Amino acid sequence: MTEDSVMLEPSERLDYLLTHDMRIIQSDEVFSFSIDAVLLARFVSLPPRGRVLDLCTGNGVIPLLLSTRTSAHIGGIEIQPRLANMAQRSVQLNGLESRIEIKQGDLKELMPEGDKSYYDCITVNPPYMPLTTGEPKENVYKAMARHELGCTLEDVIACAARLLQTGGKLAMVHRPARLTDILDLLRRYRLEPKRIRFVHSRIDTEANMVLVEAIRNGKPDVRLLPPLIVYTDTNEYVEELNDIYYGRRSELRNGDHE
Amino acid sequence: MTEDSVMLEPSERLDYLLTHDMRIIQSDEVFSFSIDAVLLARFVSLPPRGRVLDLCTGNGVIPLLLSTRTSAHIGGIEIQPRLANMAQRSVQLNGLESRIEIKQGDLKELMPEGDKSYYDCITVNPPYMPLTTGEPKENVYKAMARHELGCTLEDVIACAARLLQTGGKLAMVHRPARLTDILDLLRRYRLEPKRIRFVHSRIDTEANMVLVEAIRNGKPDVRLLPPLIVYTDTNEYVEELNDIYYGRRSELRNGDHE
Repeated sequence: MTEDSVMLEPSERLDYLLTHDMRIIQSDEVFSFSIDAVLLARFVSLPPRGRVLDLCTGNGVIPLLLSTRTSAHIGGIEIQPRLANMAQRSVQLNGLESRIEIKQGDLKELMPEGDKSYYDCITVNPPYMPLTTGEPKENVYKAMARHELGCTLEDVIACAARLLQTGGKLAMVHRPARLTDILDLLRRYRLEPKRIRFVHSRIDTEANMVLVEAIRNGKPDVRLLPPLIVYTDTNEYVEELNDIYYGRRSELRNGDHE
Repeated sequence: MTEDSVMLEPSERLDYLLTHDMRIIQSDEVFSFSIDAVLLARFVSLPPRGRVLDLCTGNGVIPLLLSTRTSAHIGGIEIQPRLANMAQRSVQLNGLESRIEIKQGDLKELMPEGDKSYYDCITVNPPYMPLTTGEPKENVYKAMARHELGCTLEDVIACAARLLQTGGKLAMVHRPARLTDILDLLRRYRLEPKRIRFVHSRIDTEANMVLVEAIRNGKPDVRLLPPLIVYTDTNEYVEELNDIYYGRRSELRNGDHE
């Protein structure tokens, strides 16, 4: 544990990802990943190789999870230096420096450059709350992750449209309340929605999350996948979410490490 | 049965609606209602009174069903004279002439006129198939009910936008493949999507129907209702659909009448 301790800043802890395969630096004060990111990393249709980019990458949870599903080179961009630094240290901790590259920067300034300008796939778990919903009450780290302070939904979609090649995919997780905004903006930026999945806590509750995948310059025609119901009647994670359940269980056991 | 027999044209039959409360003239050659219309009639948020209009009303199944849920005056418009006539005879058969008025006409020409120009609620189960999907192979009655021959999705939405008052509701049933088109057009015509429900045959299949309700000049914010799963694991209608199930069962028994 000596090496790990050196890498951790005050308030940070190490959690396991995907049972015990990976570890990730988290902090309740700054950033901890949610089930949203995990569901997005499972939902996206990944190319076996090529170039993938995760926008608003936070502590890098999505690039880490994606690296178990593809041999593609995976980039991550995060506007907050403290979070980008956490993500970089988690990449090192898992020995993935040759496959994942995290950069600190503003996605609004990301432009295609040279031959390698276009991506095969972009993922994003953006801030959900429009600024119109009132002044954020959290600290600045959490406020930027949750509210459209650093970038709006349109900034995210415009960035993906600039950087994806034709046929390239954008996968996003968001709140269902924004569905019309999302589909409207995607089409306006020539990212045609092709697969949508709603996530409901229980079979009889409204959806609290939506997963959307769009294709750059794709033809109109969208598939509505079976609903993802998180909890069974007996309050357990449904079969399909068992690996997340196990991940969570390890995470809890990991309290000893702090 | 003498009176009924007089009202029936060749190929037509009488079916029960909602167990034995109502009867409706149907014809497998011309038009028979589907579960889509029944789900729409249950889904729509109806005003207790006021004015309701059903576009593309076919054999009038939706106005008949709505009359059990509201005291509003209910109009229906159908472009095909043969179907409009079937609908008018079904209204008479149920003694609902004072509450339901079916007109033959083209919704593209419907304009607001005078004081009573605006509706509180509009329903529509429009033709689902864009003309780009190939030449219709059915007879002309079915082709017009299924394909966008007489009106397009945009015609339907533009008509609703012209005729609804601010705060008035448009409820529509359609195919999920058209979701982006629907939300995009609704917003363009200032009909803000507010409630969406997907219908899946089974819990693990893609949605095959979508119910959408929009509000004229509403604020952006849409609720994604719990999924409607039609069949249980044991191939029975789920509890929520029991009244439709009973309706169908009567309909089958009604084979004797033909």
